[in-house]
Amino acid sequence: MRLAAPLEKLVDELAKLPGIGPKTAQRLALHIMRISPQEATELANTIIEAKNKVIHCSICGYLTDSDPCVVCSDPDRDDSLLCLVEESQDVIAIDRTGFRGRYFVLNNNFQLINGLDLQKIDFPKIFDILEKRQVREIIVATNPTIDGEVIARYIAEVTRPQGIKVSKLAYGLPVGGDIEYIDEITLRRSLDGRNEI
Amino acid sequence: MRLAAPLEKLVDELAKLPGIGPKTAQRLALHIMRISPQEATELANTIIEAKNKVIHCSICGYLTDSDPCVVCSDPDRDDSLLCLVEESQDVIAIDRTGFRGRYFVLNNNFQLINGLDLQKIDFPKIFDILEKRQVREIIVATNPTIDGEVIARYIAEVTRPQGIKVSKLAYGLPVGGDIEYIDEITLRRSLDGRNEI
Repeated sequence: MRLAAPLEKLVDELAKLPGIGPKTAQRLALHIMRISPQEATELANTIIEAKNKVIHCSICGYLTDSDPCVVCSDPDRDDSLLCLVEESQDVIAIDRTGFRGRYFVLNNNFQLINGLDLQKIDFPKIFDILEKRQVREIIVATNPTIDGEVIARYIAEVTRPQGIKVSKLAYGLPVGGDIEYIDEITLRRSLDGRNEI
Repeated sequence: MRLAAPLEKLVDELAKLPGIGPKTAQRLALHIMRISPQEATELANTIIEAKNKVIHCSICGYLTDSDPCVVCSDPDRDDSLLCLVEESQDVIAIDRTGFRGRYFVLNNNFQLINGLDLQKIDFPKIFDILEKRQVREIIVATNPTIDGEVIARYIAEVTRPQGIKVSKLAYGLPVGGDIEYIDEITLRRSLDGRNEI
C-alpha cells in the first residue's frame, strides 16, 4: 500500500530538494497535510513569488529583487577590493565579517566530478568590473575544498595578466576549534601559514 | 545585509517545516532559485494539489484521495481486528508487515506537554466501527513513547467496557539490534516479555 497519489507526488517533489531523503520528504508532506489550507497556499505562493521576483544582479550575479543589487548600488563600498564567491549566501557570510568591498558571484554550481565547468566563468564580466571599479585586489573566496582550490587557481591564472593582485582566503585553525580534533591537512596548513606574534 | 526580501520570505516559510532549521531553509531556498521556473511551479502546484485533493477517510481517518479510503473499501480484510494508530504513515508501516485488519487513525497530533488532548479522540466513531465491523480485538499501535503509552492506556480504559479485547504492540529487542547498545528500559521490557522457546 502506498500513500494517496497526490500525497505520494508531493513526497516525490520534496525528495528532489537537496538533503531531503524519502523519509524526511514524507514527514514534510504529512506536515503539509496537517497545516491549514491558507498556510499551504502561502508556502506555495512564496515559492512562485521568490522564483518570479528574485533575479541575479546584472553586475555581480548576487540574488536580488532590484537590479543592480543592494551591494552594487551602495556608494560607500571599497571599489578597490573585489571578492569572488561561489554562491549568493557566501556574500552574506563574508559581509557579516565587516568586509565592505565589492563582490562577484560565480553562480556556476561547480562540480569537480563533472569536469568543473571552469569555462563557464564569465571572465569578460569580471574584467569589466576590474576596469570600471579600478580594482586593485581580487580576493578569491571559493570554498576550502579541492573544487574551490581548483577554481581559485584557475581564476588567479586568468586574471594575473591584468596586473592585479590576486589573493585567497587563509587556511588554518577554525576559531574555537580544538587542535586535537583538527584534521592533519588543516593543521599542516596552519603551520605553513604561521604568523609571528 | 540580508537576502532579497522574497527570498528571505521563502526561507522563513521553509523554516516553518518540521526539522528544517534556518540554515537548511536557506539552502533549500537557494536551491529553488537554481532550478527552472517550471520545476519550481511544479513543486508549488503539487503542494496546492495535495492539499486540495487529499482528505481524511470519513470512516478511519486515513489520508486519502477517495472516500472511503483504499483500506476501508477493501472487502478482503479481517474485520475482527482494528488497529489504532497515531498517523497515516503508521498504517503504511504496519501494512508492510502483512497485517490485513482494519485501521483507525487518531490524527490528533498528541503532545504530552500540551496536556495530550486525550479528550479529542473520537470515541463515538471508534465505537461505531467496533459495532459495524463486529471487531473482536483492538490493537493499540501508538508510538513506543511515554505519550504513546498514555494514549494506549486511556484508549484501553475507555473501550474495555465494550467487552472487546484490547492489546498493544510488544516492547522488546529491535530485530538486528545489538544487546550491548540497547537502552536498559527496552532490555528490561524484553526480559519481562520473554517467551519460551
